[in-house]
Amino acid sequence: MHDVVELQSHFKKYLNDNQFNKKPTGLYEPINYILSLGGKRIRPVLLLMGCNLFNENIAQALPASMAIEVFHNFSLLHDDIMDEAPLRRGKPTVHVKYNQNTGILSGDVMLVYAYEFLLQLDDKAKITKVMKTFNQVAIEVCEGQQYDMNFETRDNVSIDEYIKMIEQKTAVLIAGGLKIGAIIGGAFNEDSDHLYEFGRNIGIAFQLQDDVLDTYGDPDKFGKKVGGDIIQNKKTFLVIKALELGSDSQRSRLYTLLSTESSDENIKIKEVKSIFNQLHVREVAESLMEKYLKLAFEHLEAVNVGDERKKVLIGLSHELMGREV
Amino acid sequence: MHDVVELQSHFKKYLNDNQFNKKPTGLYEPINYILSLGGKRIRPVLLLMGCNLFNENIAQALPASMAIEVFHNFSLLHDDIMDEAPLRRGKPTVHVKYNQNTGILSGDVMLVYAYEFLLQLDDKAKITKVMKTFNQVAIEVCEGQQYDMNFETRDNVSIDEYIKMIEQKTAVLIAGGLKIGAIIGGAFNEDSDHLYEFGRNIGIAFQLQDDVLDTYGDPDKFGKKVGGDIIQNKKTFLVIKALELGSDSQRSRLYTLLSTESSDENIKIKEVKSIFNQLHVREVAESLMEKYLKLAFEHLEAVNVGDERKKVLIGLSHELMGREV
Repeated sequence: MHDVVELQSHFKKYLNDNQFNKKPTGLYEPINYILSLGGKRIRPVLLLMGCNLFNENIAQALPASMAIEVFHNFSLLHDDIMDEAPLRRGKPTVHVKYNQNTGILSGDVMLVYAYEFLLQLDDKAKITKVMKTFNQVAIEVCEGQQYDMNFETRDNVSIDEYIKMIEQKTAVLIAGGLKIGAIIGGAFNEDSDHLYEFGRNIGIAFQLQDDVLDTYGDPDKFGKKVGGDIIQNKKTFLVIKALELGSDSQRSRLYTLLSTESSDENIKIKEVKSIFNQLHVREVAESLMEKYLKLAFEHLEAVNVGDERKKVLIGLSHELMGREV
Repeated sequence: MHDVVELQSHFKKYLNDNQFNKKPTGLYEPINYILSLGGKRIRPVLLLMGCNLFNENIAQALPASMAIEVFHNFSLLHDDIMDEAPLRRGKPTVHVKYNQNTGILSGDVMLVYAYEFLLQLDDKAKITKVMKTFNQVAIEVCEGQQYDMNFETRDNVSIDEYIKMIEQKTAVLIAGGLKIGAIIGGAFNEDSDHLYEFGRNIGIAFQLQDDVLDTYGDPDKFGKKVGGDIIQNKKTFLVIKALELGSDSQRSRLYTLLSTESSDENIKIKEVKSIFNQLHVREVAESLMEKYLKLAFEHLEAVNVGDERKKVLIGLSHELMGREV
């Protein structure tokens, strides 16, 4: 069994050995750039863990872990263009550093390379199964992004629709990575399906937590500016729930606050937060988060391997939820 | 053996039966739109012909032919965004009819669906081989588009670089489709490789012919406005060759003409054409085109099936080159 640090280091070595040193540089340099921006490499590490649950040979899963990371960064790259985001992990986004056309085309070829890495799987018999899981996930990520864009111009988004959107946009990639790792590791279908459900539920919990932390996080620990979602008028779980629970006057005030740019950001954050507090939407989010976490761990429990082997995955999950292990 | 009309009709039925009637409609409607704009469906038909050379069962190649058509339209969709093109086959482009973000995201999911169709191949043993060919082609198409964009801002593009660019951007997709069809049809590697080379060489010849016809075509027969490339200051074979062969004064006049917008389009076309004529670049293009055609047919000749089976492919090639069969 490998711990998180070992898996991260295996992945980083593979990433480093597989840089895109190809021509034309205008196409490939932006790919190296976005892949170098770092992050904790959670998705590829989870894929390797999915494999390691069933198999000591994690090297066979490295190309697929690269596929997941390349796909994830492709989707960030294109999302940043669509959202006109200037920064990604504190650095200029690809379309800002280079230009928009480069962003579109480099993203396109990244998507092709994700499949190229999947094709490097040694065990050819598993390729179709792995590809089918990957495709289902890739399609859902695009659908989730479309729903997210649709929601921007809709006032009546329901909680169910919101959960479905974050499931598709965020959770299924975590789920699919774990499942692909399990398939490569030689898991039975039943086990790889439980692992998928573990990932799907924990992915939803992660995103709900992200929504809460963006407003209620500790400024010293939270990587981004606390209150950023409120300033950007984002329709997070907190907003949608507040619109559902609020009185007519609270709802109308929230609409006004979230449809205008405030001259004083801190006053805006304070007033929105005050409506959230009156309606206890943070507690609603946290209780739903617990529900998804519980579901996730029930599925992990059902995976037919010894408890000892599950410890690394459980540890990482708690760490990602900001809890003591 | 099936003739062109039969293959077109098989493909059109498959396309019609596989419309993207899914949700969110904002994501899938633009895909149906661009796929409905028509065209002769040359690429999927050539793929089916590649299969039919070796096998009577062309139905098994229909999903792959759909993959090629979906990929081709994905690349048109994203290229149209990058080129800011308002029209495609006389209809508004996707980013104009919908919006740019829709264009990016619908294109992305089309690329994923191209793989989804490839995965429907019944003979699982062939999937890896088919996917590897498809990936190589998809990567080259992106690289070709990048070179094409690079050339816009470069004054010293060589003929070799130009040929390489049109090979990647246009010819390899034709070549790859034929090869994938052959693999599905059960061809030996040697035969599917000859078919690839046939497609690659004839694809370059098609593009050279397109460059010539854009300036010298019969206005009644040519689908687009004759002289369109000149008006858009495009660096076609004719321009690059004229810059190579011209005197200092011809070269400087051509640079000036092709870096400005003319108040009178017809005068501009006439003057550029006159430089082309003085330097006989049309004849140079046509002689190179003949060279690639000859190479193409040598490779087709080498494919180890009876001449009778090659007739449909030869007929379509001549038809596409505008020659009597």
